[in-house]
Amino acid sequence: MKLSESLSLINERIRGLKQYHLEPDETTVKLNQNENPFDWPQEVKQEAADFCKNRPWNRYPNFIPDGLKKKLSDYTGVDAGGILVGNGSNEMLLTLMLSLADRQRDVILCQPTFTVYRLLAAGVGAAERTVFLDSNLQFDVNAICDALQRYKGSVLVLCSPNNPTGSVLTESDIRKILSVHTGFLILDQAYVEFGGYSAIPLLENNPNLIITRTFSKAFAGAGLRLGYMLGSSEIIAQITKIKLPYNINFFTEHVGQVLLSRPETVRQRVEFLVRERDALYDTLAALPFDAAYKSAANFIMLRCAAKVELFSYLKNKGILVRDVSSYPMCENCLRVNVGTSEENSVFANAVKDFFSSHKS
Amino acid sequence: MKLSESLSLINERIRGLKQYHLEPDETTVKLNQNENPFDWPQEVKQEAADFCKNRPWNRYPNFIPDGLKKKLSDYTGVDAGGILVGNGSNEMLLTLMLSLADRQRDVILCQPTFTVYRLLAAGVGAAERTVFLDSNLQFDVNAICDALQRYKGSVLVLCSPNNPTGSVLTESDIRKILSVHTGFLILDQAYVEFGGYSAIPLLENNPNLIITRTFSKAFAGAGLRLGYMLGSSEIIAQITKIKLPYNINFFTEHVGQVLLSRPETVRQRVEFLVRERDALYDTLAALPFDAAYKSAANFIMLRCAAKVELFSYLKNKGILVRDVSSYPMCENCLRVNVGTSEENSVFANAVKDFFSSHKS
Repeated sequence: MKLSESLSLINERIRGLKQYHLEPDETTVKLNQNENPFDWPQEVKQEAADFCKNRPWNRYPNFIPDGLKKKLSDYTGVDAGGILVGNGSNEMLLTLMLSLADRQRDVILCQPTFTVYRLLAAGVGAAERTVFLDSNLQFDVNAICDALQRYKGSVLVLCSPNNPTGSVLTESDIRKILSVHTGFLILDQAYVEFGGYSAIPLLENNPNLIITRTFSKAFAGAGLRLGYMLGSSEIIAQITKIKLPYNINFFTEHVGQVLLSRPETVRQRVEFLVRERDALYDTLAALPFDAAYKSAANFIMLRCAAKVELFSYLKNKGILVRDVSSYPMCENCLRVNVGTSEENSVFANAVKDFFSSHKS
Repeated sequence: MKLSESLSLINERIRGLKQYHLEPDETTVKLNQNENPFDWPQEVKQEAADFCKNRPWNRYPNFIPDGLKKKLSDYTGVDAGGILVGNGSNEMLLTLMLSLADRQRDVILCQPTFTVYRLLAAGVGAAERTVFLDSNLQFDVNAICDALQRYKGSVLVLCSPNNPTGSVLTESDIRKILSVHTGFLILDQAYVEFGGYSAIPLLENNPNLIITRTFSKAFAGAGLRLGYMLGSSEIIAQITKIKLPYNINFFTEHVGQVLLSRPETVRQRVEFLVRERDALYDTLAALPFDAAYKSAANFIMLRCAAKVELFSYLKNKGILVRDVSSYPMCENCLRVNVGTSEENSVFANAVKDFFSSHKS
C-alpha cells in the first residue's frame, strides 16, 4: 500500500489535530511547567531506591494497587472503591472520555483551559462545545448553566483552580452547576492543594461528579506520572472496565505510597508556595503589566503588550516561563510558576529590570 | 442526580463490558502470566536505584524520550521517528485504536487471542468482526483474506506468536495478508523474541503495518510496563498526536535503556527458555492430554478433559497455571508458561503424577 493511502486511513479527527509539543529548553530558572521547585529529601528517595532493588522487575504489578488506594482513601476521605489511579491525570481524563463521551455525547469546555481536554474530546470523536470565562478571566456560572441547558446530557469539563488563569469555582458555583446539569461533570483539581474549594464533600450526593487529581504539583512528583480520579464507587466500577490492565508500574505504585506517608512535608511546602505566590502577585501587580491575574494555584498569568520582548529578555537571563498567548482570550499572556524564594526573586527582579529598561 | 441516572449516562458499550480481572493468588511456582522467570541481576538494579536517587522527582520526564528511542532504534533497526513508547503494549494498542478504528471502521480479530484487543475495540465503539483459527488452532490465512474482502478498510489485529495458542504467522502468510488488505494491520509481536517471523523487514514497503512489542516477556520487565510500536515515520507522526503527553515516567524511560544495554543477557535467557519450552513440550506431548499445542512463545497451551481437576491438583501443590477455557475454541484448556528448570520439572512431574493417580 502507498503511504498516502495509509495516511488517509488514519481517523480524520486525529489527522486534524495539532501536535501538542513542548520544546526542551536548557535553563537555570525553570518556571514554565507548574512544577514544584522542591525535590524529595534523600532519605525518601533512598527508600524508593531500596524498593527498586528488592522488587522483582520480571513480575507484573498488582492487578489492583490496593496499598496505594488505601493510602489515597485515607488522604482524601473517599472510599477506596471510588478511587482509580493512572499515569498522570491525563490517563484518567482519557479513561473518562472513553467512558462518558462520544459522537453522540458532546464535551463542554470552559476556555481558556488545559489543552489536553480538547485533544481527548477529539480523540473519542466528541463534538466540543465552548463556554468562555468572563472578561476578567473568572468563571461565568450563568454562561456555563446556559450551555448545560443548550447541550443537555453533555460531559462538562471544568478545571479549578484553572490552568492557565488560576481562577476558581466556589462551592456555591459548583452546587449551582450540579443543580442544573443533566450529564457528568469532570472536575480537574490538579492544583487544589494550593487553593480554591475542594469538591470532595459534593461527591456523596452527586454520582455524576468525578474529580481528577495529580501527584505532579503539590506532591512534587511530576516525574512519576501519577494521577487519580475520585467518584462514587458504583460509577468508578463501571469506568474501571475500560482502564488498561496493569496501567501503572511498580515504581509509581510504591512511590505514591511513600509520598502519601509524608503529609507534613507536603503541607509545609504548600504553605510556603502559597505565601510566595501571594507575595509574588503583590510585586507583579505593582508593575506595569496590562494585567496580573490573582491565582489560587502555584502559578500566575500575566498580560503584557511587550510579551515577546519580555519572554526573550527572561530567557536570555536563563529564566524560562510559559508563553500561553495561543490560548483563547490569552493574547500577550505569559504564565510563571512559583519557584524557590531565590528563583522568585530572580524572576521578580528581572521583570522589574525589564520594565525599567523597556520604558527608557 | 440519582445514581441510576448517572449510571445510565455511561456509554452503553462500556457498561456492557465484562470486567477484565485476575485474582491475586499466593503460589510458589507461578506459571500463569507468561512472565520471564529471571529477575535482573543486582548490579543492573543498582544502576536504576542510583538513578532514582539522583533524578529529581519534581520535574516532568522528557517530552520525547530520545535516549530510549535511540536505543530501541539500534535494537530494532527501525528509525527513531518510526517508534512510539508507552506504558505496556496495552497503551500502544489503545493509541492505535483511537487513531485507526471507530464506529465507521471495524476491527477484525482472529480468535482465540489476547482479550485486550476486544476491550479496546469496544472502548472506541468499533464493531468487532471475527475470524477463527483453524481446528488445529493455526492461522487460517484464507479465512483472514476472506474477511478482509468482506470488511474492506477494517483494522486487522493479529498476534504472532499468538496468545494463548502459541501459533505463528509465517513471512509468506503476512505478505499474502498485506497484499490483499486495504486497511491497517496491527501486528502484536509481544512474544517474537521466543520464535516466529519478525515482521520488521516488511515495515519499509507497508506503511499500513504497525508492530507492537513489549519489555514484559523476553526483557523480563513486566513490572515496568514498557511497550512500543514500530511503523513508518509518517504514520507514527500522526498517531503521536493522540498519545498522552509525558505518558511514561522517568523510571520506565531510564530502565528501558538500561535493559537494552544488555542484549547478551536477554539473548542467553531467551535461548534457555526456548530450549526449556521445547523440552517441556516433548514431555507434555507424551502425556495423555487431549492436545498439547506446539508454541513459538514462552508458554504452551494444553487441552485436558479433566481440566478442572488438573488445575486444582496443581494449585494444591503451589503451582499456578492459567485457565484459558473461556477463550473461544479453548474449551478445557490451560496455559502454562516456561519457568526456571526447577519450576518446569516441578510442573512436569506434577502433571505426570496427576495422570498416574487420575487413571488409577
